[in-house]
Amino acid sequence: MSEHTIRAFDADLGELARMVAEMGGLAEKEIADSVMALARRDVELAQKVIALDPSVDSLQRAIEEKAILTIARRQPMAVDLRDIVGSLRVSNDLERIGDLAKNIAKRVLALDADIAFSQVVRGVEEMTKLVLAQVKRVLDAYASRDVDKALDVWRRDEEIDAVNNSLFRELLTYMMEDPRNITSCTHLLFCTKNIERMGDHATNIAETVHYMVEGRPLADERPKGDDTASFTALARV
Amino acid sequence: MSEHTIRAFDADLGELARMVAEMGGLAEKEIADSVMALARRDVELAQKVIALDPSVDSLQRAIEEKAILTIARRQPMAVDLRDIVGSLRVSNDLERIGDLAKNIAKRVLALDADIAFSQVVRGVEEMTKLVLAQVKRVLDAYASRDVDKALDVWRRDEEIDAVNNSLFRELLTYMMEDPRNITSCTHLLFCTKNIERMGDHATNIAETVHYMVEGRPLADERPKGDDTASFTALARV
Repeated sequence: MSEHTIRAFDADLGELARMVAEMGGLAEKEIADSVMALARRDVELAQKVIALDPSVDSLQRAIEEKAILTIARRQPMAVDLRDIVGSLRVSNDLERIGDLAKNIAKRVLALDADIAFSQVVRGVEEMTKLVLAQVKRVLDAYASRDVDKALDVWRRDEEIDAVNNSLFRELLTYMMEDPRNITSCTHLLFCTKNIERMGDHATNIAETVHYMVEGRPLADERPKGDDTASFTALARV
Repeated sequence: MSEHTIRAFDADLGELARMVAEMGGLAEKEIADSVMALARRDVELAQKVIALDPSVDSLQRAIEEKAILTIARRQPMAVDLRDIVGSLRVSNDLERIGDLAKNIAKRVLALDADIAFSQVVRGVEEMTKLVLAQVKRVLDAYASRDVDKALDVWRRDEEIDAVNNSLFRELLTYMMEDPRNITSCTHLLFCTKNIERMGDHATNIAETVHYMVEGRPLADERPKGDDTASFTALARV
């Protein structure tokens, strides 16, 4: 590549990184706001989350377009190519995270509070803090191409699964205790599941960082694969 | 492009189309088998579905690699570029469909049958037939670049949402009637939600076919966006 081409290519990569960072910021906001809206049953905030989601989707399409055009124009090899593929993959996961947050926000619009709700929702907030910390850390790892930090996120997904399992049990108990809890607990079951899946997307991003830097997929069994425990927990309650 | 390059490029596109078709076949099999395993509580078949899923994931990675290399090597423009981007998008949706089917299969391993189960599971099977027909049709539309057929799939997603809403109500009623139904009904709630989301991915693929052929995104509000009805139905039971 000529010096000019190299500069132009670096500018393309920089722009892609900036767009992914912007998308990451929006996804983090959607996570935090959707669960805050849930905890406070704040319909107005929930509607803001729903209204924000199309911006996240547009950013994903813009990243895809920019990535594809950069590949076609510059024909990058090896680490540069992986960098661009990485931005495609990360933006896919961020779009999914935004979608899950939007889904939680939509449930806020339909939610009635009951006895179980106020007791369980604190657990949901705690779980969200864990997931949000994972998302922040993995976006840092992505921005700095830090494989160790990414692997750390990858390993910590088990904690979230454990919290998820215990919330599941708790919710089912409330449902069995009093049928009037069933509707709101069902909403919370789905919200909890969505938050757990945000955690899975954080581990996906961790895998992408590993692939970008090391040039090969993570060999170990991923922690997220095993959610049999949660299903078994469900069956046992 | 020289004649040789054009031939090589056509071979690349043909190979991508073949890989997406293969992936589509596997995803269809996962849908059908996971719900058959659920209906019959067939643990062995469920395990086969779980064992099949990594092949779907590998195919997605292979399609991504092939697509990216083809873009870098041939620098296609316009409709050819959209064709390749389309294969990337469709393979993403098929991977998600496979994941949702695997998730249903995992629940089979933890499921107990009770009174509600046998009554509701027929509805789940009917819903799956609708979704499977949607997936088949949209993969046909993709293979033949048939926008009208794709739009037809896109519009029909509402039917699936309606069936989903009525199953949701039914499940909640069983849970309220007898707390012993709660565990299995919770599993079925998640299975039903997964099947509905498979339908959403079929509409995504329909949008991709539209984009590939027309070169612009679908302007209308997509039908899948509005699942408020399902949440409201939940709240009302």
